[in-house]
Amino acid sequence: MSKLTDVPKRILIGRALRSDKLGETLLPKRIALPVFASDPLSSVAYAPGEVLLVLSIAGVSAYHFSPWIAVAVVVLMFTVVASYRQNVHAYPSGGGDYEVATTNLGPKAGLTVASALLVDYVLTVAVSIASGVENLGSAIPFVVEHKVSCAVAIVVLLTLLNLRGMKESGKLFAIPTYIFVAGVFIMIAWGAYRGLIAGDDMKAPTADLSIHAEKGGLAGFALVFLLLRAFSSGCAALTGVEAISNGVPAFRKPKSKNAATTLALMGSLAVVMFCGIIALAMTTDVKMAENPATDLLKNGTAVGSGFVQNPVISQVAEAVFGKGSFLFVVLAAATALVLFLAANTAYNGFPLLGSILAQDRYLPRQLHTRGDRLAFSNGIVLLAGAAVLLIVIYGADSTRLIQLYIVGVFVSFTLSQTGMVRHWNRHLRSETDPNKRRHMIRSRAINTFGAFFTGLVLVVVLATKFTHGAWVALLGMVIFYGTMSAIRKHYDRVSEEIAAPDVPSDDTVRPSRVHSIVLVSKLHKPTLRALAYAKLMRSDQLEALSISVDAAETKALREEWERRGINVPLKILDSPYREITRPIIEYVKGLRRESPRDVVSIYIPEYVVGHWYEHLLHNQSALRLKGRLLFLPGVMVTSVPYQLESSEAARMRARRRAEWNAPGSVRRGPVNQRPKEPTNKS
Amino acid sequence: MSKLTDVPKRILIGRALRSDKLGETLLPKRIALPVFASDPLSSVAYAPGEVLLVLSIAGVSAYHFSPWIAVAVVVLMFTVVASYRQNVHAYPSGGGDYEVATTNLGPKAGLTVASALLVDYVLTVAVSIASGVENLGSAIPFVVEHKVSCAVAIVVLLTLLNLRGMKESGKLFAIPTYIFVAGVFIMIAWGAYRGLIAGDDMKAPTADLSIHAEKGGLAGFALVFLLLRAFSSGCAALTGVEAISNGVPAFRKPKSKNAATTLALMGSLAVVMFCGIIALAMTTDVKMAENPATDLLKNGTAVGSGFVQNPVISQVAEAVFGKGSFLFVVLAAATALVLFLAANTAYNGFPLLGSILAQDRYLPRQLHTRGDRLAFSNGIVLLAGAAVLLIVIYGADSTRLIQLYIVGVFVSFTLSQTGMVRHWNRHLRSETDPNKRRHMIRSRAINTFGAFFTGLVLVVVLATKFTHGAWVALLGMVIFYGTMSAIRKHYDRVSEEIAAPDVPSDDTVRPSRVHSIVLVSKLHKPTLRALAYAKLMRSDQLEALSISVDAAETKALREEWERRGINVPLKILDSPYREITRPIIEYVKGLRRESPRDVVSIYIPEYVVGHWYEHLLHNQSALRLKGRLLFLPGVMVTSVPYQLESSEAARMRARRRAEWNAPGSVRRGPVNQRPKEPTNKS
Repeated sequence: MSKLTDVPKRILIGRALRSDKLGETLLPKRIALPVFASDPLSSVAYAPGEVLLVLSIAGVSAYHFSPWIAVAVVVLMFTVVASYRQNVHAYPSGGGDYEVATTNLGPKAGLTVASALLVDYVLTVAVSIASGVENLGSAIPFVVEHKVSCAVAIVVLLTLLNLRGMKESGKLFAIPTYIFVAGVFIMIAWGAYRGLIAGDDMKAPTADLSIHAEKGGLAGFALVFLLLRAFSSGCAALTGVEAISNGVPAFRKPKSKNAATTLALMGSLAVVMFCGIIALAMTTDVKMAENPATDLLKNGTAVGSGFVQNPVISQVAEAVFGKGSFLFVVLAAATALVLFLAANTAYNGFPLLGSILAQDRYLPRQLHTRGDRLAFSNGIVLLAGAAVLLIVIYGADSTRLIQLYIVGVFVSFTLSQTGMVRHWNRHLRSETDPNKRRHMIRSRAINTFGAFFTGLVLVVVLATKFTHGAWVALLGMVIFYGTMSAIRKHYDRVSEEIAAPDVPSDDTVRPSRVHSIVLVSKLHKPTLRALAYAKLMRSDQLEALSISVDAAETKALREEWERRGINVPLKILDSPYREITRPIIEYVKGLRRESPRDVVSIYIPEYVVGHWYEHLLHNQSALRLKGRLLFLPGVMVTSVPYQLESSEAARMRARRRAEWNAPGSVRRGPVNQRPKEPTNKS
Repeated sequence: MSKLTDVPKRILIGRALRSDKLGETLLPKRIALPVFASDPLSSVAYAPGEVLLVLSIAGVSAYHFSPWIAVAVVVLMFTVVASYRQNVHAYPSGGGDYEVATTNLGPKAGLTVASALLVDYVLTVAVSIASGVENLGSAIPFVVEHKVSCAVAIVVLLTLLNLRGMKESGKLFAIPTYIFVAGVFIMIAWGAYRGLIAGDDMKAPTADLSIHAEKGGLAGFALVFLLLRAFSSGCAALTGVEAISNGVPAFRKPKSKNAATTLALMGSLAVVMFCGIIALAMTTDVKMAENPATDLLKNGTAVGSGFVQNPVISQVAEAVFGKGSFLFVVLAAATALVLFLAANTAYNGFPLLGSILAQDRYLPRQLHTRGDRLAFSNGIVLLAGAAVLLIVIYGADSTRLIQLYIVGVFVSFTLSQTGMVRHWNRHLRSETDPNKRRHMIRSRAINTFGAFFTGLVLVVVLATKFTHGAWVALLGMVIFYGTMSAIRKHYDRVSEEIAAPDVPSDDTVRPSRVHSIVLVSKLHKPTLRALAYAKLMRSDQLEALSISVDAAETKALREEWERRGINVPLKILDSPYREITRPIIEYVKGLRRESPRDVVSIYIPEYVVGHWYEHLLHNQSALRLKGRLLFLPGVMVTSVPYQLESSEAARMRARRRAEWNAPGSVRRGPVNQRPKEPTNKS
């Protein structure tokens, strides 16, 4: 199958790049930060806007609550970072949340986390690219006018790059990430200077709009619910924090310490950026609405569907730097680029998680092989297809996509932290060193608080967002969970069926003699080779078998057989209907009936050709026959290949394909650095 | 590949029908007539209309030429029928035009005929179904309002029926064909009675319209050209005449005589029907125009695009029987049905011709097998796809499709008749019996006239229709010709490459010893079976090979190996990157380098599963490995299957698939009735 579907793929993505073998290079912190943090840092490009957007439902007066929501997000961020610093120390193998949940809470919890993470990878691609397109669109209007097409084009581009085996490069990540971080910090500093010291009156482009409150004058429970919903949206800033805990093996030594430091650094940067942007948005009077066309009013009339609501970060940049200024454009470009890099991290993370799941037999075994291009390719295409589907369905609207996003993250946060609590409990039972015990008790306290807080957020997210789209994410998780359980069940059933009996005596595996048959159509080199090889094997009985579909040809074959003096008896079966498969199957069945304890060994001369279309012209009958023969018990089928000249090209292609570079190798770290953990190898 | 693409096919077409084996039943003339003549007879449903339509370009006055054109068509019909009666006697094997052209004019002429016929099969489907829909539409307006969708739906229906292996049934063809013929004869007789004896003034629905002559007052060369174009269109009545010459083996004895009689009968029926319809159309003042919307005028104003121009046969039936009368509806239904049956003949003829071409290695060898479902299915899907494409492009407009139709028919007529002239020349050179010589000279004269006349028509058709669409048909022929030549060239090149040298001593085919390797991943039943089988084969050296991707698992394997006391040495290769294929390939290459004259025999334990999705979960690494191993010279690969319980279902499915009934079997006749002709088996 791969042969045919390969062709369009090949045309699009070209030959695989030769790449250096998996880098023995470990990542220093300054490179690890951008590699792992592009996802969480980039989310400050959309999270503040989402908070304002939800608050706007209650009217512009509700914006006053935004600092409090920012505080809540900051507290949550610190909690999560502190919790994951514990994970990084306790599980330096990089198994991440899946490993933590599986080891401490059992395989079902692990599988739940895995399903949540798989859904989240899809959403990371969809949300990041949609948001990136919106940010790019604030500088280049064309992009936002063709939002869906542009977003799909970028998904396709990333997909092709990753199918080609583009290696994740630390430098590639470092430059835009640092420009983005620097840009945001300069913006905050310059904004603070202009606002506080120079006393400028900075105005966002939406400053002079007013908001039509969909539900004005909310109070009591309704207001609290709205604030919780705004908080849930702000939690989008936390997505991707767990990435570092998966990547510990890629860090320089001391791995865990460096990873923990990077985590803390990342958390601090994110918090400052998030709060700074919210503060600037308040200062510059940014207005955001869920339905800008109807709810944003200019001089009392709705702005209409032609209005484009730019992201908060771009509105703030416009107010601080000036519309179209150099820094504004640079920041917009860097923001978009960082968001696209964030999407790219999913392309690396998805197959990586897939290979871990395959190790545990939740996914097809072949995903387990590190460099298996085909398997990775399928994963990448699946990821991209699901992301494109979401982008098209939701019109590349980051606001609507974010509704789906946060569920998965908090499912895995909560289960992972709960698992960590169990982890410490277990270790505390055996640990006696009071110093270490103190340390563990402290860690347990942090993780307990983390589990509680993230669990609370999960409930809030589910309660406030379920009907807004979170159900789609949950449905996705259920589908992944169901599929993976079914695969695991299948493997378990098969492995039980084929388990060797302890007493090594079994009739079915103790055959007595071999009856060898060489299939002959004409006497050419491939047939002669098959005959020669079969003779070498010294079976108990050897004969050549030919199907007569044409009397003249059969006669010619018989004559040449004798002329060449081939000392193998030639048996000819008549086939008036010009069938090949059926007479052979019947003959073999007959042999098996006569002597059930014998094994029948069938030699098929096969042509090896170089191109898929040549494949259509050869070996088709052989393939079909083989497919049927494999269903007969007590039969083995030997292909004796004859390499045609054109096969050389295919051999080279296959070799190049084998040297392909799998995505995710940089963040996974070198192989021998990753000892196998005692997970659920049942 | 087939596995995956099979699934949607399976869902649509269901399980293959069990059918009786190729009928030992031969066709009596009364059944052979409808089976073979539905195509040529049905063309009288559209041919008369096409004549009027072209004439209308010169205005309604040009209609007076229509009897003369009818006469020309009749003469041509008699010529062609007389010519093919010679073919039927000279070539009773049923090879048809392809065989005649190949044998007498060489393979290039044969291939040209084959290309023309393949294109014509596609057009038979497109034209017949488009025309059938138009006829049905004259009784049921809904159908003609959704012309393209209805036509496509019928193509799809016929395709599904044929994919299911619907057997062509004589009775199925007989009833509608006889109803159609009887209906047309009753119409002609009743029309003659009403017009000539009762003196009724029958009026076609378009009788009171007038025609706006696009090119009024044509004269001289322009008029002749138009008349020739009208004649070309009328020649559509001749399509399908050659079908009987392909089907001689299906007739009862004396085959050739019966076939010749049926041919004459068919010709007479067609001629009477064609002329009768033209005469009735003249009597009832039918008006047809190429662009009815603008060129048909009612009281001086164009009828506009809402006007539906019904086929001549239906307009005449309306005039004779009365609109909506029982006989009118029956005739419309029978006409449509016969046209659909005519389309169905292409579904039978296309794979049949394909299997003959495959015998001569112009198409993949597997088409050659009579009952090969997969091959036939691909042919049917190709045919249907091309027909749907044409139907959609030409808006299911039979008039526009007919422009493409006639080229192929006359290419094969002309070449076939020219071939017959050569045939007689050759036989005359050796024949001495004056009686037989006289017969042959007479036959040669008929065929010479046939070749000349059909050649002339071909020139006329090309000249008058090239720009109107005939170029599309020619392009199609060139594509088929090119593809088939390329396939033949490939087979010839390969067969030269693999031809066994006459001196039976060749280093490459004389290996000395066998080094056997059993690939082991775990010690389960499939592995034990592979080991047991490999031991039976008594090779010079036997070892088990395992790739270590996980130290713990490898250790367990080693321990169990010893515990079970398996007396085969176990070799373990380390694979730090968890690769399977590369270490094995390298190891085998190493063995081959050490002792190049040895053969390496590799045993791979394989699971046999029942469903395609289970297939995705197993054997993938084995398959990939096998694909690579086949490229190494001096290696043979043995699959040792282990049948899982679920494989039983697949075995049953495969068997049912093998019992499928190939289309075209009825018209091809029983197998042993069809001796192999001395065609170009070079």
